[in-house]
Amino acid sequence: MRTPVAVLGASGYTGAELLRLLLDHPRVEIAALAAERSAGARIAQVFPQLAGRLDREVESLDTEAIAARAEVVFSCLPHGASAAAVAALVERGKLVVDLSADFRLRDAGEFATWYGPHPHPQLLARAVYGLPELYREQLRGARLIASPGCYPTATILAAAPLLARGLLRPRLVVDAKSGVTGAGRAASLGTHFSEIGEGVRAYKVAGTHRHTPEMEQELTLVAGGAVRVTFTPHLIPMARGILACVYGEPTDPALGEADYRSVLIDAYRGEPFVVVLDDALPDTAHVRGSNRAHLAVRLDTRAGVVVAMAAIDNLVKGASGQAIQAMNIALGWPEADGLSGVALFP
Amino acid sequence: MRTPVAVLGASGYTGAELLRLLLDHPRVEIAALAAERSAGARIAQVFPQLAGRLDREVESLDTEAIAARAEVVFSCLPHGASAAAVAALVERGKLVVDLSADFRLRDAGEFATWYGPHPHPQLLARAVYGLPELYREQLRGARLIASPGCYPTATILAAAPLLARGLLRPRLVVDAKSGVTGAGRAASLGTHFSEIGEGVRAYKVAGTHRHTPEMEQELTLVAGGAVRVTFTPHLIPMARGILACVYGEPTDPALGEADYRSVLIDAYRGEPFVVVLDDALPDTAHVRGSNRAHLAVRLDTRAGVVVAMAAIDNLVKGASGQAIQAMNIALGWPEADGLSGVALFP
Amino acid sequence: MRTPVAVLGASGYTGAELLRLLLDHPRVEIAALAAERSAGARIAQVFPQLAGRLDREVESLDTEAIAARAEVVFSCLPHGASAAAVAALVERGKLVVDLSADFRLRDAGEFATWYGPHPHPQLLARAVYGLPELYREQLRGARLIASPGCYPTATILAAAPLLARGLLRPRLVVDAKSGVTGAGRAASLGTHFSEIGEGVRAYKVAGTHRHTPEMEQELTLVAGGAVRVTFTPHLIPMARGILACVYGEPTDPALGEADYRSVLIDAYRGEPFVVVLDDALPDTAHVRGSNRAHLAVRLDTRAGVVVAMAAIDNLVKGASGQAIQAMNIALGWPEADGLSGVALFP
Amino acid sequence: MRTPVAVLGASGYTGAELLRLLLDHPRVEIAALAAERSAGARIAQVFPQLAGRLDREVESLDTEAIAARAEVVFSCLPHGASAAAVAALVERGKLVVDLSADFRLRDAGEFATWYGPHPHPQLLARAVYGLPELYREQLRGARLIASPGCYPTATILAAAPLLARGLLRPRLVVDAKSGVTGAGRAASLGTHFSEIGEGVRAYKVAGTHRHTPEMEQELTLVAGGAVRVTFTPHLIPMARGILACVYGEPTDPALGEADYRSVLIDAYRGEPFVVVLDDALPDTAHVRGSNRAHLAVRLDTRAGVVVAMAAIDNLVKGASGQAIQAMNIALGWPEADGLSGVALFP
Repeated sequence: MRTPVAVLGASGYTGAELLRLLLDHPRVEIAALAAERSAGARIAQVFPQLAGRLDREVESLDTEAIAARAEVVFSCLPHGASAAAVAALVERGKLVVDLSADFRLRDAGEFATWYGPHPHPQLLARAVYGLPELYREQLRGARLIASPGCYPTATILAAAPLLARGLLRPRLVVDAKSGVTGAGRAASLGTHFSEIGEGVRAYKVAGTHRHTPEMEQELTLVAGGAVRVTFTPHLIPMARGILACVYGEPTDPALGEADYRSVLIDAYRGEPFVVVLDDALPDTAHVRGSNRAHLAVRLDTRAGVVVAMAAIDNLVKGASGQAIQAMNIALGWPEADGLSGVALFP
Repeated sequence: MRTPVAVLGASGYTGAELLRLLLDHPRVEIAALAAERSAGARIAQVFPQLAGRLDREVESLDTEAIAARAEVVFSCLPHGASAAAVAALVERGKLVVDLSADFRLRDAGEFATWYGPHPHPQLLARAVYGLPELYREQLRGARLIASPGCYPTATILAAAPLLARGLLRPRLVVDAKSGVTGAGRAASLGTHFSEIGEGVRAYKVAGTHRHTPEMEQELTLVAGGAVRVTFTPHLIPMARGILACVYGEPTDPALGEADYRSVLIDAYRGEPFVVVLDDALPDTAHVRGSNRAHLAVRLDTRAGVVVAMAAIDNLVKGASGQAIQAMNIALGWPEADGLSGVALFP
Repeated sequence: MRTPVAVLGASGYTGAELLRLLLDHPRVEIAALAAERSAGARIAQVFPQLAGRLDREVESLDTEAIAARAEVVFSCLPHGASAAAVAALVERGKLVVDLSADFRLRDAGEFATWYGPHPHPQLLARAVYGLPELYREQLRGARLIASPGCYPTATILAAAPLLARGLLRPRLVVDAKSGVTGAGRAASLGTHFSEIGEGVRAYKVAGTHRHTPEMEQELTLVAGGAVRVTFTPHLIPMARGILACVYGEPTDPALGEADYRSVLIDAYRGEPFVVVLDDALPDTAHVRGSNRAHLAVRLDTRAGVVVAMAAIDNLVKGASGQAIQAMNIALGWPEADGLSGVALFP
Repeated sequence: MRTPVAVLGASGYTGAELLRLLLDHPRVEIAALAAERSAGARIAQVFPQLAGRLDREVESLDTEAIAARAEVVFSCLPHGASAAAVAALVERGKLVVDLSADFRLRDAGEFATWYGPHPHPQLLARAVYGLPELYREQLRGARLIASPGCYPTATILAAAPLLARGLLRPRLVVDAKSGVTGAGRAASLGTHFSEIGEGVRAYKVAGTHRHTPEMEQELTLVAGGAVRVTFTPHLIPMARGILACVYGEPTDPALGEADYRSVLIDAYRGEPFVVVLDDALPDTAHVRGSNRAHLAVRLDTRAGVVVAMAAIDNLVKGASGQAIQAMNIALGWPEADGLSGVALFP
């Protein structure tokens, strides 16, 4: 008997990616799809890759109707809109995995600074940050999971173990490169093939990207003291993938590159989806379509800088795959259920 | 108890794709990998996407050793080299799925015209052409399967039902567009990113591509009379995918577009991996990474030409996925085992 | 003393391409830019590649104001809108090169079939079709030039000499592949990077694309009898370029491949922008950014089909470059002025 | 009467780019092309984009023969090989612009550390570093010009004015993203379309890339004290372009973003090829094919970090265009001769 799940905001890329993964998940069945703009359409009209594989109508969002049919709900709604639906579904006792930003920041004031007033601040304390490598225990039995942002996932995986051991000074430069799906499915000049193919550019430079406070919140918690991040995201001509390079100053000049690598290896021993590379360097092409993170660390001995790198698929480990991983943990299922797929390379 | 399988030529793209699919196949286990150039390396050094997922050494090719450990062998060796290994393994009673061209042509003379003298012509009659949509019954219990070429797969799927009913005159133009993985993993100026990105070009034009006789052989068989194909392959700037456009002249001017569509729908009713689109047109992006074929047909009433189209992933339905599908049928397993994955879109 | 020129519809890709080429043209100066949506902006805000190179405000369209300041006007307005501006400017004695479809079809009835009623049918007879290789003499002194469509340019260059000599039967299949700039600068799901990168698809199949009647009109004229074209355009993941493959049946089975090549070579001897390749095949990457067309022809002796190919840059020889070439001829200037640039490869 | 120029190493990408630019340069004519591997071929066989535009045989390298026919020689030979040819040609009184690394480092010991013993150390003192924005006066009349590396060009343009005024602490992080042409034309797995399309990866991380000492040398000179750079290059899926992000710590916390921008604007006032953007951010797509650099600077006030960015085309301002700019200055010609082309966007 499979557990019925629903996807809200099913017409975007994280929605489609949830469907791709959930269709091969051995313990769930897709019970409902909601998306305002596509309401009334068959899902295969919205996403032709599902033709012959999933034949279901997209519904207008009605949390009561959803609650009546699903036990687990993934919300890919935009921030703000998501909080309202999440609140209604949590109240009805559903397991809700929220892929929006609405429950990622623990502090309502900080949320307000970046997004405006929080519509349901009382729920913030109930949300568990859905990064299993840091919060596996808290996720067990959780009912409201705030699935992390794509950039924070890559950044935190690379930097957290080093900060947790006090090996880096608490000021980091994070230079990250993302595929275009990170910008969503809405058509705009900024996602037009002809505008962004064959080029690279930074955007929201110098601490203006909303993922900055999320990184700082989590890294501050692991470091046990305030961490500041200068974050520069880039848009590069590929659909999927994030590569984050984290630059930090060592606190202990006696350590060598192998020491930093050992710290990462120790930190992620037994983790099903994190690989610490040795000779090779992370390449987003090697994780595309998979829930894996490839990490590496290098020490610039000339300049005295540690460079920690992480490659993920922004739609999988950076969004939908990680959301399913968190669900698996919350429900006590095998953590890799539905997530065993090898990256599609090339 | 899983069936042990081996992959010969595991260091190329069809080899990697077999591994990706076989790792999630519920009835097999990977027992051996062989590849001359990479012998001695761990497979994750050859294909970093397998890091943490498959840890096995690549061996030098030794058919005796392979036969001792595997019940099913997939050969991704180059043509010529493949026939020798296939012959040795068939003799030892293994199920062999040959992804090379060595057993696709039924006639040794025709083979010689395109590839040189056949090293094992006596085996040609034992080989079953591994296109399940045409040869499902012959595949049951087969021991030597000649897995079709990527271009022929797309072309035959689009054209065969129309030719089988005598609806097209037996002279076709096939204009096909392929991703770069079709050229293999060997580095050359012709696969250099800078040379072929941002451009499109035909190659081996006017009946000089070796997939031409394969198409003609199979289409002639279904048509019940000689079919001639003018085949033009193109290389376009993407890694995966083939879109084939088949142009043919109707034999019955009274038929309308809906009639041709009905023929395709009837032909593929119940097929697990073929979808006949209605309003939409096939797009390789919608089948990438999956074993599916998307078909459509249009009638140019002004000029009197039928246009049948098929989109596949050249590495999956055009190679490794189809090879697994054929294995499933040969062994009496559920045909979609290991092949249920939805396309990775976007 | 440079001739003042104006560009209407300057905020689209053909507008930008005109500016790129005109800025290095030795005989003109840019006197006015008009574009409704961008009116009031500096052109470098619309197209940052012009920063430091052209500092001019984009104006709202006012044909009187334009006529007062420019002697030559290029219109990149949408069809329908263009005809009105063109009529006003022709009346004021300007040389107008219209890059829209409004004056390409000679027959108002045919125009109406594809676009709706023509707003200025009386001007159709005055327009010269701006393909210099066919209409050089008529272009000298012309005042209204209908610049050809991108697909027709490639198709006609490949096919016209063969049809003119009666070497092909008058039914052609044209399978063409275009970069995404052909779809314009407007943002849509169909031009979203994530939707169309890594994939290929046909669109407006089976004679439904509006460039079909333009091809047929011109090929019929050169052939001296009705020519029917089955035209299939494709969108492929690159910004620029068109490769057209023209398939036709030979009328004289005695001719060999070299004969067809000789016909093309003879037809284009002395042409400044047409190259007939011998061993090589056309590749859009080799003409990107240039006004050149690369042609080749092959004979499929097995099937009896001639394959003629042409590669152009859709924005240059397929639009803005060709428009400038026509202006040069109309004004008696050296034909290659402003168009000598070598393709940007890679 | 045009000045005869020769290109050594004409079969690579910087060679091709020199030819593209030189063919439209009003004061030169191409007198000789040399390239070992392509010797005996016509240049249009090596680079089909030149068909119909330049018909000349590629010669085997013979510096005597070159010296007899050319007054200016551009060397695109590999480092080491270049020095020998350069020495011979400088001795014969030619103006030599060396695009290899052989004369970029002033110190023979430093050169030896990164490249091995220098074959002609006595010439190092005669070489002028060919970055016009820093060395315009020294370039006038120079006979041996060491054309800068692509990464150093972008990095120095972004950072030098800020360091020259003492506004940044002398430890920088430089995170740069390059198109694939930076890896040259030689075919390798690392430039295979299928391997590197749809992915991003760093390489030669943590101060191991040979452009590091070049950056440090020049930045140290402008800063008037040792500058250390942690340099991370990336390979991204596009053919051309470099975007460098330079991260530095302000020395004066009272300065605001506008102050840093003013410094850049002042530093590059009157420069023909440097644009300091205001609201916009640099995008390599906006400089592709042009000799321009687009710069911007942002201040992360939260973390106290200055982010200076530069976008160039690695083959133009990062190589061949800059080499021509230096030649123009050395010979007293207008600096923008042959370099006025607007970027090819899109």
